[in-house]
Amino acid sequence: MAAPTIIDELADFSACDCSDALVKLGVAGGGFLPGPSMWSPQRQEGTTKVIGRAYTVRYALLSSAEDKVPVHYIDTIPQGAAVVISAPSTIPNAVYGGLMSTRAQASGAAGTIVHGRVRDLHEHRALGYPVFASDVGTVSPYENAKVVAVNQKLELVSEYGTTIVEPGDIVVADIDGVVVIPRSVEDQIIPLMIRQTQADAKVAESIKAGMTFVEASKKHRV
Amino acid sequence: MAAPTIIDELADFSACDCSDALVKLGVAGGGFLPGPSMWSPQRQEGTTKVIGRAYTVRYALLSSAEDKVPVHYIDTIPQGAAVVISAPSTIPNAVYGGLMSTRAQASGAAGTIVHGRVRDLHEHRALGYPVFASDVGTVSPYENAKVVAVNQKLELVSEYGTTIVEPGDIVVADIDGVVVIPRSVEDQIIPLMIRQTQADAKVAESIKAGMTFVEASKKHRV
Amino acid sequence: MAAPTIIDELADFSACDCSDALVKLGVAGGGFLPGPSMWSPQRQEGTTKVIGRAYTVRYALLSSAEDKVPVHYIDTIPQGAAVVISAPSTIPNAVYGGLMSTRAQASGAAGTIVHGRVRDLHEHRALGYPVFASDVGTVSPYENAKVVAVNQKLELVSEYGTTIVEPGDIVVADIDGVVVIPRSVEDQIIPLMIRQTQADAKVAESIKAGMTFVEASKKHRV
Repeated sequence: MAAPTIIDELADFSACDCSDALVKLGVAGGGFLPGPSMWSPQRQEGTTKVIGRAYTVRYALLSSAEDKVPVHYIDTIPQGAAVVISAPSTIPNAVYGGLMSTRAQASGAAGTIVHGRVRDLHEHRALGYPVFASDVGTVSPYENAKVVAVNQKLELVSEYGTTIVEPGDIVVADIDGVVVIPRSVEDQIIPLMIRQTQADAKVAESIKAGMTFVEASKKHRV
Repeated sequence: MAAPTIIDELADFSACDCSDALVKLGVAGGGFLPGPSMWSPQRQEGTTKVIGRAYTVRYALLSSAEDKVPVHYIDTIPQGAAVVISAPSTIPNAVYGGLMSTRAQASGAAGTIVHGRVRDLHEHRALGYPVFASDVGTVSPYENAKVVAVNQKLELVSEYGTTIVEPGDIVVADIDGVVVIPRSVEDQIIPLMIRQTQADAKVAESIKAGMTFVEASKKHRV
Repeated sequence: MAAPTIIDELADFSACDCSDALVKLGVAGGGFLPGPSMWSPQRQEGTTKVIGRAYTVRYALLSSAEDKVPVHYIDTIPQGAAVVISAPSTIPNAVYGGLMSTRAQASGAAGTIVHGRVRDLHEHRALGYPVFASDVGTVSPYENAKVVAVNQKLELVSEYGTTIVEPGDIVVADIDGVVVIPRSVEDQIIPLMIRQTQADAKVAESIKAGMTFVEASKKHRV
């Protein structure tokens, strides 16, 4: 039997747990990607979690000087990948729809994260396939945008700054949001998370038994 | 038996299907109206669809030089209409509430789309009446806004540009968003949608059976 | 048996009812606080209402010249309070999480309103504790922010202007949003709300029976 991979081990933890560990490891912003939230299989409900290595796709405006990639990104998704898609912020087109989830699921993808809009909500939900996005819409991208890069670094801009996603970075997405774990620190997070979640469980128990937060923290957190 | 109208025929299609056809017909932005999303009968869940011809209402600031219309818009909604309401973007007032849905439903309206905020969520939901809006709030419009135009052209501004709604344009709104079908092209969309949705169903089937997206598209899309 | 307090009496009314009364009393904006909406126990569903006097907490950036308060705010919440928390708008950190709700609930707080982000959605929901917030996220505040004021006036800025919350102001929050009732007018709102909600119920009934909105309003509203 194979030893559990870090992807297996992460199943015990939340996106918040990952951010807590990343802050301790000095990762600015705790790896949080502002913007995308859960739209499928449910809207910010339930225990769905996407855990996978990033397979990145970048859309640019049709008017961009960059060339369209020759091969459709949706047919080359590695088993277990988290598909991460970047859309131009100046257009309301939904760059990702139901057929894309149909194909991603057939490839064994873990889920799709879109920094931009998606459409065909009913189709993603009927598949039970996890989709995170900034918003929804009705218009396909074809009149306005093209895919110009696959498996290259993404720079995702929000009102707070820029979040980098490198191909192969682990992405963890759940009801609270999306976290990107830089490869350089991924080996260090599990022990930190075990320690913190065990302490937090005891803190919660002590608070429920009548202790103050400060007392409970002193007692259970080292 | 009367021949089915285009309103009847649209019941078989989604807002996304409409946008696909509108893009093919050269309608910029595929008719998508950025902003309003489904709040009633459910929050972006379920199969509710509003399909109707636009009955338009425009609110302006109380301080505007435009005159308030003398007759209350809510009492003259045509049977089957989609009520489309524009609110000033600089105030957080909710221009539409429960009594308005009570009256709209009694008039046989198909639903209400508000480019702005609504209130009384429980009341719309208890009626089972479809309401789409940009957001919710608690304050009525009376201190800040007045209705200055009924059944005149609306220019709805979003971060992406301006969407025009002419009285009588068909509006299709569902879980993915709101689409406005310009009258000049409405006769051409049904055949385009039949062709596309039939092809897409076959593409989905082939993908599930193991084909790539590109192969499946080549096989089923002309 | 003690006479019912205004907090008890408010249980019969909605946040919208409160705004209606506040507009009549000349409170600009009807007391509506733009931004926070219900995230727990459900996402903008259900009959949950927070009614309590504001216990205020203000976070500032770590770089701020203001001193961190010496005592943790979470351990001194008065029974029945509505905890109102202000976070800096320039950071995506979630200033409030599951352990905070655990402690607030143990203190008998009515609920928590965050002008900013929260995290640990599952934990608030598992507690059945009401949490309203502007958005969600995954990162704790500790790397970026500190509490600099407890039970002092808050100035909450939105795109529409500034909403003031004074410690002890009554806060009413439900599915439509959050309303702040200034102390100076709180004694006057209940009779206004009784009159309006009784009239509105009759207006709704008459509309359902076939009357126009204008006729029904003339008949039932003085």
